[in-house]
Amino acid sequence: MKQSNIPSAIAVVSACQARGIKNIVISPGSRNAPLTISFTENPFFNCFSIVDERCAAFFALGMALQQQNPVAVVCTSGSALLNYYPAIAEAFYSTIPLVVISADRPPYKIDVGDGQTIRQDHVFHRHIGYSANLKLDVSHAKERIERYAPHLLAQQQIEIENHNTSEVNEALYVVLDKQLPVHINVPFEEPLYDTQKVGEAYQNPNDGIQSNDSVLNDIKKYRDLWNSSKKKMVLVGVNHPNAIEKEQLAVLANNPSVLVFTETTSNLHHQNCFKSIDSIIFPIEKSKNTDEQFKDLQPDILLTFGGLVVSKKIKAFLRTYAPKHHWHVDEVKAYDTYFSLTYHFKTNTSAFLEALLLDNKPVNSTYFDKWNSVKNSYEAKRSRYLEEIPFTDFSVFHQVLNSIPNNYQVHLANSSTVRYAQLFDINPTLKLFCNRGTSGIDGSTSTAIGASMYENGPTLLITGDLSFFYDSNALWNSYIKKNFRIILINNSGGGIFRILPGAEDSENFSTFFETRHGMNAEHLCRQYGFEYESAKDEIRLKEKLLDFYVNSEQPKVLEVFTPRELNDKILLGYFDFIS
Amino acid sequence: MKQSNIPSAIAVVSACQARGIKNIVISPGSRNAPLTISFTENPFFNCFSIVDERCAAFFALGMALQQQNPVAVVCTSGSALLNYYPAIAEAFYSTIPLVVISADRPPYKIDVGDGQTIRQDHVFHRHIGYSANLKLDVSHAKERIERYAPHLLAQQQIEIENHNTSEVNEALYVVLDKQLPVHINVPFEEPLYDTQKVGEAYQNPNDGIQSNDSVLNDIKKYRDLWNSSKKKMVLVGVNHPNAIEKEQLAVLANNPSVLVFTETTSNLHHQNCFKSIDSIIFPIEKSKNTDEQFKDLQPDILLTFGGLVVSKKIKAFLRTYAPKHHWHVDEVKAYDTYFSLTYHFKTNTSAFLEALLLDNKPVNSTYFDKWNSVKNSYEAKRSRYLEEIPFTDFSVFHQVLNSIPNNYQVHLANSSTVRYAQLFDINPTLKLFCNRGTSGIDGSTSTAIGASMYENGPTLLITGDLSFFYDSNALWNSYIKKNFRIILINNSGGGIFRILPGAEDSENFSTFFETRHGMNAEHLCRQYGFEYESAKDEIRLKEKLLDFYVNSEQPKVLEVFTPRELNDKILLGYFDFIS
Repeated sequence: MKQSNIPSAIAVVSACQARGIKNIVISPGSRNAPLTISFTENPFFNCFSIVDERCAAFFALGMALQQQNPVAVVCTSGSALLNYYPAIAEAFYSTIPLVVISADRPPYKIDVGDGQTIRQDHVFHRHIGYSANLKLDVSHAKERIERYAPHLLAQQQIEIENHNTSEVNEALYVVLDKQLPVHINVPFEEPLYDTQKVGEAYQNPNDGIQSNDSVLNDIKKYRDLWNSSKKKMVLVGVNHPNAIEKEQLAVLANNPSVLVFTETTSNLHHQNCFKSIDSIIFPIEKSKNTDEQFKDLQPDILLTFGGLVVSKKIKAFLRTYAPKHHWHVDEVKAYDTYFSLTYHFKTNTSAFLEALLLDNKPVNSTYFDKWNSVKNSYEAKRSRYLEEIPFTDFSVFHQVLNSIPNNYQVHLANSSTVRYAQLFDINPTLKLFCNRGTSGIDGSTSTAIGASMYENGPTLLITGDLSFFYDSNALWNSYIKKNFRIILINNSGGGIFRILPGAEDSENFSTFFETRHGMNAEHLCRQYGFEYESAKDEIRLKEKLLDFYVNSEQPKVLEVFTPRELNDKILLGYFDFIS
Repeated sequence: MKQSNIPSAIAVVSACQARGIKNIVISPGSRNAPLTISFTENPFFNCFSIVDERCAAFFALGMALQQQNPVAVVCTSGSALLNYYPAIAEAFYSTIPLVVISADRPPYKIDVGDGQTIRQDHVFHRHIGYSANLKLDVSHAKERIERYAPHLLAQQQIEIENHNTSEVNEALYVVLDKQLPVHINVPFEEPLYDTQKVGEAYQNPNDGIQSNDSVLNDIKKYRDLWNSSKKKMVLVGVNHPNAIEKEQLAVLANNPSVLVFTETTSNLHHQNCFKSIDSIIFPIEKSKNTDEQFKDLQPDILLTFGGLVVSKKIKAFLRTYAPKHHWHVDEVKAYDTYFSLTYHFKTNTSAFLEALLLDNKPVNSTYFDKWNSVKNSYEAKRSRYLEEIPFTDFSVFHQVLNSIPNNYQVHLANSSTVRYAQLFDINPTLKLFCNRGTSGIDGSTSTAIGASMYENGPTLLITGDLSFFYDSNALWNSYIKKNFRIILINNSGGGIFRILPGAEDSENFSTFFETRHGMNAEHLCRQYGFEYESAKDEIRLKEKLLDFYVNSEQPKVLEVFTPRELNDKILLGYFDFIS
């Protein structure tokens, strides 16, 4: 086995190995050769090659999301690195452990007009857990460095190595402990391709992160408050499947004083959960006694956990009808999303619920019953509405969501896809994901493909046309598994803009907001080796869905065309119908 | 005519109009509605809609490059903005006036878990001429702001407007005066779609930038030095067509003490210019008396102008055999590329040359003659070599470059394309461009399409396969003109990596460096409405080139397949042959 002979490259690669960071997504380049050689020649690592760095970073993010373990991306110097930024911001807000490793030019080549050279240090300063800026390793390129920057030779090699090791350790500590993305920038002088044999691999016996739950010591007063309050709302954002115990959820959901509001991305299922938040709130907004009803809904205690929440309506409601207490449970951070945060429990949700629900006594209250009858009512109306409406986004989402076989991993693109999915009941065996950190349309396909790499079963992405075409380079990926599936709901543009207040049927609107287009995915499927099927009506869609999940020799896309100018009317009509 | 009723949106749009910034590239979104409405409803502006922000920014950059005038990009909040970053860095290093305008959420919605919300202020701090962070306009959304952030209402509307106007003015001053990219971040609270009628448009009578050439006052001592030196090298980087007078170039090129080294991207043509720098330097590197020859070539005075230089060899040579004097001429900045800069003339090149060459007396010297005979020798050898070699990248570039009709605008992608083009003589009527600021492969196609928008004649992009597929979303653009042409030289991967020292024929090499693939562009052409032709040998290529430039109903791609494993040998063989 061989590796680069440059100590800083060895330090980075060894530290990743010691911390168990196995998956490395590499984009081609020359400056990063010392890293590429050392990662790819070492059988400990699973390396993936992806050319477009924007896709590479989302692919790595998907893998890290599904694995719940850090994944590294490696690129050459220059603008390559900047293409990582959309995924880094998503990782930052979704707390996904992404390790960004960039090769850089030596410091004396920066801002002197050299090619592929930018200011890489601290470039992600607004959205990064840690920026490790390694020093140039002078030991292997003394002659060159003496010529260009002799002052660098005054530094002791041991000082450089100590600095670099300590920076890399700090970065990997942050990514593992805080689950935030980190950036390690490694300047290299030529020669870049020299190698040496690998000796004993460096192993750190003290890795692994301990979670600290001393925070639960004073839980008793919160438990008392909980047990004496008659209106408690639990609101769960993006949440990994199996993040909390079914029994714990049942205790919450069976308490008459508790409403559990979940979203599609919460991955929580109980018959008493309220799964379509907007279907509750929209009718109240439209009713004659809005204020009175919202006051009925207003909780005394709001308990939140998980990541970001999709529903804008619940945010607007809770910001106006603020709870007396808002407790957020998360090991790392708590956003004050509703401007009423009163306590941040820095621990994991399961441990918190265990402590909170110790000697749980259901509180006598009508809170659940009252809103449950509202829920039953809109669910009945939704069924009737679905029978009446023509083939549109609304009916297609219903049909598609019902078609998915058990235990699929399902990724939802932003933004209409995840919003529509919120309106329907979801098969509880599915594992749902969506990039809600920045809610971008820029990397949903790449993320889904990354997340499918180590998933035992098949993976389905449901996406709209703009997000699909935006991330079309995601399909330029030689690792896509045969059981990867995409359902593309193509409404010829950003149909979601049609439901915005102020939208109107003008040429400017359809060009600059909706960005109408007449594209389909057939040629892209041929380009990238996907089977392609399409449907334009309910009967054809039903037929196509029968075959779609069957094993195949190639991954598959099923494109569903919906009527651009009818979708928004049917969606808005739904809310009117249940009001 | 209508516009948004939000004063900050009006301020931005009016200031653009007052400064003559006519071209606006908009990506879809809701938060940016006040800007989109105000730009698109105003007939002063030419608005373009491009969905993928990465392509949108390079498209705008291409337009600004060709127009030599600022072009604005406008996007919604969140990660959308981050996709602009690769083009912003290119604009920063290539001094191209790009105005980045981002809509943002109100400050109290940042980092509280709202969707599509990141930290946008100062996000490009490493590569931006100015970051204007506007204040939230409170006048149109008082009720909301009172609820969420009442302290903001304490600010006087007039103070906010003064701040915003002054920030926008400063940003536009920098983009116009320094030609650097700038970022204007505009937070908006809902409602976003309300409009008002437009009154008298704001006009600033004092716009227009004066260039200051007092710097030429003490030119005399430099002129004396110039006129007494026997070895002077003029080296021109990326340079706009017609940036200097033909007569001035002739005076330089006819001086026996002057070597004028140009690159393909210099857009300068004279029979005495040295157009293939590497063809001069490589043979010296390989010769037995390298040091002696390099000392002969070493100039007393190095005069540089234009942007970044492609040739790595000239950089390495000049860094080792440093000139006594290095003068750089540029209105804004001077990079110390060769670690020997002695004076920066802050003026335009034409004015400088006029002053320098006043009462010009050719200096008696053998400098030109000696190197001209070397040039004549390699040019003769190159012709012989071309007759001998098989169909490969080298011969294809020769054939393609010779085929281009007069007066074409030609864009060269990074990086093998621009490097190959350096090796051949170029038709002097062509206008050549290449993104050499960051030398990225990420936006060459978008840049070329942007630059073709206002070009009177046709535009040709010559590109390799990795850069073409990387920027495939560039073709998702409804403004592409029928006379836009792409010649795609497909060597099934990053063939340029094969010529690097240390490259080897292993599976790891072809996966992680070369990133071998078997793709072609045919399906993408069908996807995006291009005519498609291909060629695999010289005769077929000759045939296809005959028709390729003829008028057509659709833009065209001609894909040329070259042998992946032979290209590097023929290229390296060329340098051996001329040595």
